[in-house]
Amino acid sequence: MIANTPPPPYYAVIFSNIRTDTDEGYGQTAEHMVELAEKTPGYLGHESVRDGMGITISYWKDLESIKFWKQQQDHLEAQKNGRDKWYKAYKTRICLVERDYGFEL
Amino acid sequence: MIANTPPPPYYAVIFSNIRTDTDEGYGQTAEHMVELAEKTPGYLGHESVRDGMGITISYWKDLESIKFWKQQQDHLEAQKNGRDKWYKAYKTRICLVERDYGFEL
Repeated sequence: MIANTPPPPYYAVIFSNIRTDTDEGYGQTAEHMVELAEKTPGYLGHESVRDGMGITISYWKDLESIKFWKQQQDHLEAQKNGRDKWYKAYKTRICLVERDYGFEL
Repeated sequence: MIANTPPPPYYAVIFSNIRTDTDEGYGQTAEHMVELAEKTPGYLGHESVRDGMGITISYWKDLESIKFWKQQQDHLEAQKNGRDKWYKAYKTRICLVERDYGFEL
């Protein structure tokens, strides 16, 4: 569940969002977007939680991987549907992960 | 709910976590940590979602603000209790937000 990312530096794309009440194709597209990300070179993992608002974070090797991921045709269509149907609001933040540390029982 | 952050660059601290079954003092401390963050110079906002795993992201002006926030006495105690009682696992990632964009209906 917590993404097993390599040592920094790497990139994080934070996608914070609030859904509309429209489900039309949402679940299927969300699953397809995860499959597409997993096949994209430079993909390092992702974490996703929804309860009221949603936060999905995908982790990437570099900015080039993110650019490629963003511009794939299926993803462009998903972005358009997202604005037209699925989201009331979202914010995407492109971040350089400089440092990380963790804990596990 | 989506944090209203200023134009980049700024910092994000991503705290991805999995809870134990122990609640002892957790809710009260979590609330107190939000209050403490809000009073810390350089705090820009936060987003928090839990459903199975939890993701809390706090946004900060610079690394100095994050360092100060991390080292306040109440926060140090919360970190210790977190490892001793409340979390099975967590990962903290310190990130420079280089770019952001959004959408709102």
